[in-house]
Amino acid sequence: MVYHLYYWPGIQGRGEFVRLALEEAAAEYVDYALLSPKRGGGVPALELYLAGAGIARPPFAPPFLQAGAQLIGQTANILLFLGTRLRLAPRDEAGRLWVHQLQLTMADLISEIHDTHHPLAVSLHYKRQQPAAKRRSKEFIANRMPKFLQYFETVAQRNHAAGPWLVGRRLTYADLSMAQIIAGLQYAFPRAMGLRMRSLPRLRALHEAVFTRPRILRYLNSGRRLAFNEEGIFRHYPELDR
Amino acid sequence: MVYHLYYWPGIQGRGEFVRLALEEAAAEYVDYALLSPKRGGGVPALELYLAGAGIARPPFAPPFLQAGAQLIGQTANILLFLGTRLRLAPRDEAGRLWVHQLQLTMADLISEIHDTHHPLAVSLHYKRQQPAAKRRSKEFIANRMPKFLQYFETVAQRNHAAGPWLVGRRLTYADLSMAQIIAGLQYAFPRAMGLRMRSLPRLRALHEAVFTRPRILRYLNSGRRLAFNEEGIFRHYPELDR
Repeated sequence: MVYHLYYWPGIQGRGEFVRLALEEAAAEYVDYALLSPKRGGGVPALELYLAGAGIARPPFAPPFLQAGAQLIGQTANILLFLGTRLRLAPRDEAGRLWVHQLQLTMADLISEIHDTHHPLAVSLHYKRQQPAAKRRSKEFIANRMPKFLQYFETVAQRNHAAGPWLVGRRLTYADLSMAQIIAGLQYAFPRAMGLRMRSLPRLRALHEAVFTRPRILRYLNSGRRLAFNEEGIFRHYPELDR
Repeated sequence: MVYHLYYWPGIQGRGEFVRLALEEAAAEYVDYALLSPKRGGGVPALELYLAGAGIARPPFAPPFLQAGAQLIGQTANILLFLGTRLRLAPRDEAGRLWVHQLQLTMADLISEIHDTHHPLAVSLHYKRQQPAAKRRSKEFIANRMPKFLQYFETVAQRNHAAGPWLVGRRLTYADLSMAQIIAGLQYAFPRAMGLRMRSLPRLRALHEAVFTRPRILRYLNSGRRLAFNEEGIFRHYPELDR
């Protein structure tokens, strides 16, 4: 099965959570964000599905994945689908739901991270909502980020299986997403994260374990992984990291 | 199977999406939000799970559902679990993922609705973030609400099966949630929704069809359904409805 991944070009964004799963599983996939419009990629490729009147089950937004006749949207839903196929999820139903639950809690965290720089309106430039962004980031750093990270630290602690993972003794897609969130937060809030991660040994170990996996390393060195930048979810605005 | 539902007392909130599914299926369940702390309900019942050191798979936040030995958190995840068991989801995997995808898109919408009155900080009283709430609500009413609602209208239009539902010819949990969102938005933004719903005939029909189902009507008249109020997700602040 060749998977087809559709996402905005130029940013890691939510597409990156799907990419990490595909890369870790060495799945064959076409990344339309890396293809030029001339070669069938880029924004026109997205718009075909988002605005196409012939699409029976249209996605609301990227990322979405085409797998055979299926078109699947919503990051966590794509990972739910891929988890079973790529052996990145437990085999029992209770375990699969638990991993999905963690992924949905990460999705909530990701939305809150996005809103640190865009608390008032997606359509408004950051500079025009900077005072509100400062207030929201202050709250995020003081209350929300610690609450979420401590939660995942606790989840890892209570996983009694050997190894650094959140669930059981095998890596799941939730581990990949957790490591990606830590990397993104370290990019966006280096000062606050530097302090915070000191008291989160399980998350430090998880982050390290994911980003030293051979296939993940190969991906990082492939030139395909975009750098974090100030167009994505994780943005480094020093004035917000206080 | 008797289900055990845990949620904050005093508000419909996210718990209501689960309640509507349980009610429509006439499932047997204990609603701990309606029990006093003396009888094992209320906030202490929640805290047992949220803060209890012995919980192997703790939820991050309410609602969560106990079903036998399983403890399941995240509204959309609970509905994914219940959908199969209560026959509120398609039987084929592609259909189940599609309904879940719609539910996750509704979860995104619900977060944005919450942020209209709390754009800066959950921990800050509404009155102290009113100017920011006005700005965010303006964006929500002008851009985000129309985009989301038009999306679901399109989904319903492209469902070629007879009847008012989003997917296929049988009601799913996504229909119940959609109707609940429409009811909540009509409560919070009566002016904006009065205008908007004129051009959304499929959503009007869906909302009507859900809230005239015999079991849903019985629930509405049972005294168990709380009224919308200014503590929940959907809040009516007239100054935001402009």
